[in-house]
Amino acid sequence: MYDRIKGFRDFYPGEMSARREVIDDVEEVAQRYGFREIGTPALERTQMYADKSGEEIVEELYNFTDHGGREVAMTPELTPTVARMVVEKQQALSKPIKWVSSRPFWRYEAVQQGRFREFYQTNVDIFGSAEPIADAEILAYAADALTELGLTSDDFEFRVSHRDILGGLLESFDADVDTEAAIRAVDKRDKLAVGEYRALLGDAGLSEADAEAFDELLETEEENLDELVAATETERVENAVENLQNVLDATADLGARDYCTLSLDTARGLDYYTGVVFECFDTTGTVGRAVFGGGRYDDLIEGFGGQPTPAVGVALGMATLSLLCERAGVWPAETTTTDYYVLQVGDTRETAAGITRDLRERGHVVETDIAGRSFGAQLEYADSIGAETTVIVGEQDLADGNVTVKEMASGDQRQVPVDEFPESGERK
Amino acid sequence: MYDRIKGFRDFYPGEMSARREVIDDVEEVAQRYGFREIGTPALERTQMYADKSGEEIVEELYNFTDHGGREVAMTPELTPTVARMVVEKQQALSKPIKWVSSRPFWRYEAVQQGRFREFYQTNVDIFGSAEPIADAEILAYAADALTELGLTSDDFEFRVSHRDILGGLLESFDADVDTEAAIRAVDKRDKLAVGEYRALLGDAGLSEADAEAFDELLETEEENLDELVAATETERVENAVENLQNVLDATADLGARDYCTLSLDTARGLDYYTGVVFECFDTTGTVGRAVFGGGRYDDLIEGFGGQPTPAVGVALGMATLSLLCERAGVWPAETTTTDYYVLQVGDTRETAAGITRDLRERGHVVETDIAGRSFGAQLEYADSIGAETTVIVGEQDLADGNVTVKEMASGDQRQVPVDEFPESGERK
Repeated sequence: MYDRIKGFRDFYPGEMSARREVIDDVEEVAQRYGFREIGTPALERTQMYADKSGEEIVEELYNFTDHGGREVAMTPELTPTVARMVVEKQQALSKPIKWVSSRPFWRYEAVQQGRFREFYQTNVDIFGSAEPIADAEILAYAADALTELGLTSDDFEFRVSHRDILGGLLESFDADVDTEAAIRAVDKRDKLAVGEYRALLGDAGLSEADAEAFDELLETEEENLDELVAATETERVENAVENLQNVLDATADLGARDYCTLSLDTARGLDYYTGVVFECFDTTGTVGRAVFGGGRYDDLIEGFGGQPTPAVGVALGMATLSLLCERAGVWPAETTTTDYYVLQVGDTRETAAGITRDLRERGHVVETDIAGRSFGAQLEYADSIGAETTVIVGEQDLADGNVTVKEMASGDQRQVPVDEFPESGERK
Repeated sequence: MYDRIKGFRDFYPGEMSARREVIDDVEEVAQRYGFREIGTPALERTQMYADKSGEEIVEELYNFTDHGGREVAMTPELTPTVARMVVEKQQALSKPIKWVSSRPFWRYEAVQQGRFREFYQTNVDIFGSAEPIADAEILAYAADALTELGLTSDDFEFRVSHRDILGGLLESFDADVDTEAAIRAVDKRDKLAVGEYRALLGDAGLSEADAEAFDELLETEEENLDELVAATETERVENAVENLQNVLDATADLGARDYCTLSLDTARGLDYYTGVVFECFDTTGTVGRAVFGGGRYDDLIEGFGGQPTPAVGVALGMATLSLLCERAGVWPAETTTTDYYVLQVGDTRETAAGITRDLRERGHVVETDIAGRSFGAQLEYADSIGAETTVIVGEQDLADGNVTVKEMASGDQRQVPVDEFPESGERK
């Protein structure tokens, strides 16, 4: 009768169980790193996004005027919200601030595989440290989160770059080039035909020869970064290369170096990045676009009216992450599990209810009859919910002081005195 | 620079930690009952709410026209969404369907203590059973969830009623009375002056004498329900009283009877309830209104175009629940905890990073220096995040093959050979 809205999804228990397992893993790793969970609102002022990303972003928002006349938008990303929160309590919060949260976001975009209008992200951010070790901790967190899910260095790689290398290179060709436009072009480099891409660089102000030379420099290998510095002779590139190398060195201490690879054409589309940026890719290429990305954004807090506060973060998107996990064969089984079904036949409800309560108090997942069903129908239901064990509480058995404990997989069943069930060791 | 929207909240780590603990407890109890988590969208068709609750509900919605011309609303409650989901997969889902989910909802309402425009609920529902034991399981779940939080029967009570007792009583006075309007009046009984309340009953079609007699019958005690049946002489009231008594009996088997008390003037405002309804109240009265409520809504699925499917559920609201927990002194401490801080001084980064990784792999919450700070500043930070233990990795110590392990509460510290730390038993 009513239809779901395009780009929004319902998650039934099987699929939800797998998603929950993945989100829990990713969050638990963040907790071990000392990231603290925050809770954030679903609506913010539309102006906040327009100021940060330009008026054209509004076309991609679920924005509206509320009944009180406020111009509001359903949050399309977390970063502006956490920036607002940092500014609001800047004095009270001890630095570095390390925050994590998982929740949906909303964008009015074209729906495609791995991209929905309602999408879930786990955002992990550090505020208050400009040190390379902070960038490295974000990279190491992301690597640990993925390996916790069962992924290995055969499955994914982090393509790491630095905004100031790109910016400095562009400047070294022509001080008047529109750096942001050129970086946006680089961000689309893999998706465009060479001609289109070069045309965008031209629009940004690079001559044809410069564009070609620039493009060649983007291919610089990690061991030749010094040559790149020598070629450009700018302090900006020199500092950026040093910073990038320091970050990569720090990832080695944290055990994440193997996942990182230099990739100067990794630009990240968002204008607010200022330093190291990175994107996670499926090494097999089956998942054709970035699984997620992150980087350093040192100017945003000040732009939001706060004290200058360096920041670095990453946002793991569930939609693309699930594609990668599925491709690698580590997406959890989409089934729910049940420890016990307590089957009740005849006038045994009180005893059955007592056993059910006992088992639940011990932490087991337990269902029992709440629909007044026959023996056969209950057994069928116990099977349908994947019950490991069915405890049959029957009148006859009970008269003899017993219940029947049936292991569903093997079909084995045994009689157990009712006052010895559940066994005292039977604790989840 | 940017302000938060009225009625929406930011949760910083301390408060969020307490909320997470409460939500986790409430969800874990639901899982033990065999309720399965689902995930649901934040937007639905506005029409769905207008059809279900009348056009006037739209004034309370965050509704708008999206960029594709759809009339949509941010979900003000879960019930219509789960009804839609049940209808969509009615054939595939094995019954009874037992679902749980925790998430925010949104209503454009007056903001007051314990009521926000963005509010969090844990919704727990059973579809496919009309049996009293299903109602009882919902009540028992709610009671177990609250006792899991540390609340006792001294803290809360469930005031239980039945829509058909109210409806049948009203009919017995006057077949033409507007039952829904009268029930809405009863729902406001405690909040209105007697005159106003009686006037609403009058508007619904009850004469003054009937209103007074009706009102007196609402005070009927549990042991006198038979008299109520005798007084009205209608099958509808008789059946409803029997059903209510069966539900209360079933709560006894499930250990929840002590929390339930008959309260015929508990009406629940929502029109879709059809059978047993209940509200949870603070027994001390300090929290002045219902903490949460629930009940049976057997007609909704059919109303949404599905097969007739009985349903019963409850929605625990975090805002009022936190008021009750605070009043009862069981709201969790609003602090975050840290197992280890790994303090790094001099050229010891590699070793410190290795210890940090080891401890995290063992499941501990561990922070280390990511801001290039001095010994003193690090120790101060370790203190500010409530680290239980600080592991000091210093150059001098390390030259001797040691680290210093400092217990922060006592100040005790001891030297431990670096290759014996963390101790092998040191697993969370």
